[in-house]
Amino acid sequence: MNECSSLLCAEPVSVAAWSSIAGKKEGEGPLGSCFDRIEPDSRFGQNTWEQAESAMQRRAVKLLLQKAGIPAEALSCVIAGDLINQCTSSTFAVRSLNIPYLGIFSACATFAEGLLLGTVLTGSGVPRCAVLTSSHFSSAERQFRFPLAYGGQRTPNAQWTCTAAGAALLTKAEQPPYILGVCPGRVCDMGLTDASNMGAAMAPAAADTVLRYLAATGTRPADYDAIVTGDLGTVGSRLLLELTGKAGTDLSAVHRDCGVMIFDGSAQDTHAGGSGCGCSASVICGYFLPRLRDGRLKNILYAATGALLSPMICQQGESIPGICHLIHLSHFPRKGRLI
Amino acid sequence: MNECSSLLCAEPVSVAAWSSIAGKKEGEGPLGSCFDRIEPDSRFGQNTWEQAESAMQRRAVKLLLQKAGIPAEALSCVIAGDLINQCTSSTFAVRSLNIPYLGIFSACATFAEGLLLGTVLTGSGVPRCAVLTSSHFSSAERQFRFPLAYGGQRTPNAQWTCTAAGAALLTKAEQPPYILGVCPGRVCDMGLTDASNMGAAMAPAAADTVLRYLAATGTRPADYDAIVTGDLGTVGSRLLLELTGKAGTDLSAVHRDCGVMIFDGSAQDTHAGGSGCGCSASVICGYFLPRLRDGRLKNILYAATGALLSPMICQQGESIPGICHLIHLSHFPRKGRLI
Repeated sequence: MNECSSLLCAEPVSVAAWSSIAGKKEGEGPLGSCFDRIEPDSRFGQNTWEQAESAMQRRAVKLLLQKAGIPAEALSCVIAGDLINQCTSSTFAVRSLNIPYLGIFSACATFAEGLLLGTVLTGSGVPRCAVLTSSHFSSAERQFRFPLAYGGQRTPNAQWTCTAAGAALLTKAEQPPYILGVCPGRVCDMGLTDASNMGAAMAPAAADTVLRYLAATGTRPADYDAIVTGDLGTVGSRLLLELTGKAGTDLSAVHRDCGVMIFDGSAQDTHAGGSGCGCSASVICGYFLPRLRDGRLKNILYAATGALLSPMICQQGESIPGICHLIHLSHFPRKGRLI
Repeated sequence: MNECSSLLCAEPVSVAAWSSIAGKKEGEGPLGSCFDRIEPDSRFGQNTWEQAESAMQRRAVKLLLQKAGIPAEALSCVIAGDLINQCTSSTFAVRSLNIPYLGIFSACATFAEGLLLGTVLTGSGVPRCAVLTSSHFSSAERQFRFPLAYGGQRTPNAQWTCTAAGAALLTKAEQPPYILGVCPGRVCDMGLTDASNMGAAMAPAAADTVLRYLAATGTRPADYDAIVTGDLGTVGSRLLLELTGKAGTDLSAVHRDCGVMIFDGSAQDTHAGGSGCGCSASVICGYFLPRLRDGRLKNILYAATGALLSPMICQQGESIPGICHLIHLSHFPRKGRLI
């Protein structure tokens, strides 16, 4: 284990405001009432799926600024990324803002990478960092799998890329929720090559990061109200519990998964659950952050997982590497220390 | 202008070590003697161009560790990105390292974004951050333009994606060169839609960032030995001098461009010059950092430019947004302050 295995914040950082946008299907799921906005038009008024995804991100930022009560120019920087080639959903969303922009990529773990970097920037004195991400079912399907019109059959292990976006504003410690620690992920690759079973490809990375953070902080699963993975789905979630169980840590009492929570798998035909950068971003912003603000939840670990695949590397026979970045969110501003 | 327009380091950070790898054509250019390694096999012993690019990044990291005299596990984290879809060149390069990995994307400005984030992480107490990027002519050509076998004609404004990689190790202040300040870029889009004229698309971003940093620090071009843009090429460089000149700042005496420096345009048939994440990364690591260490150069601004395009957004008729992140490198560890 190396020295950056975990990074506790010298001073906690506040998630001062947040916003979430969800598509129609996501709005019809169990968390429908949690999202700030549900958009029935999957094109978001645009001509292409990629433009639709950008428009969704723009709405998320606009709503974030409204909820925070600040103008765009008050943002110090925007950290954003998405699944689409060359992160264009994010680029075109922030283009009109005229704010410094740092592009990131961690597949479906992008929101957590953004919170991690935003926490470090805020801790370094940057006043107001926005973190932004999205995914769109239609833009992702045609890029990673098949054109929608092809009508390809989905495998039982497949996850459903959510049409959703999340945005958060980080500031110095002012009010809950506070970010108390972060843990950047390592690339974990167990040799899986099935691009329709990403949960299994990502579970080892989730186990690695969660176990490293628990070890580095000397905490146990029972110290948290929830240990929330981003988008392992039902298949990956079972595997995570198995892997951590074998390592002597039982997560079963506190484990939640954003990909499982966002859909009613049996009624919505979403197979193993939701996925996409927007999945855990919208669930964290729609469900968890409000509960951490008012104290219904005291302490959670948000362990977002990403499958770092591209269609080309799959065609070239490569296996699918996973990654998991972790954010420790709390209702209380306990000071940490730098490990 | 907002508060994050420039960020001077509270404590300077050292670029403790660096490495550069170049392809055959780049090795035959004017900077051939500067690179650590020149690889005559454009496949780097691999079966595909994408695997070749990953292999090149692995070599750059290996060489970085050798030159720094540390094992891989001494790295706290790796910040890396590249031009290939879903940043797979970087992912597969760092996969075997087992080190926390933060994926970034700023097109050809990726190395500067990495140095910027690495500087902030190092300033926050992370001991040893590696920054890594690459580009490969053949993987980039087929992804962004045409299959190589198609033999498409190149326009006079076109730039040549370099086969090159650069890696740097950041630590707390120990020895020159020091990073004294950073300035994250804003997305600038003047409405250009010609994907073969990226220099022109990026020049406004370079002007924006350089002028913001000069204004924020109260410095003039004459205060620097060089203001080095990354990959504007001949067309974009002319435009940068014109744009900054109109704003009342004459950069002509100190401006250098990595894309112009790396090739002999007339003898090497590279048209407007080099481009790609690996272009400015290898030129900074091969040419500028050694001269900043021994004092031949005292003070430079490295303003890396990126064109945030994807083939799909071009096909959808969108214009090409540019970005430019700036790093202030110095032989002297003058302390800055946070703006």
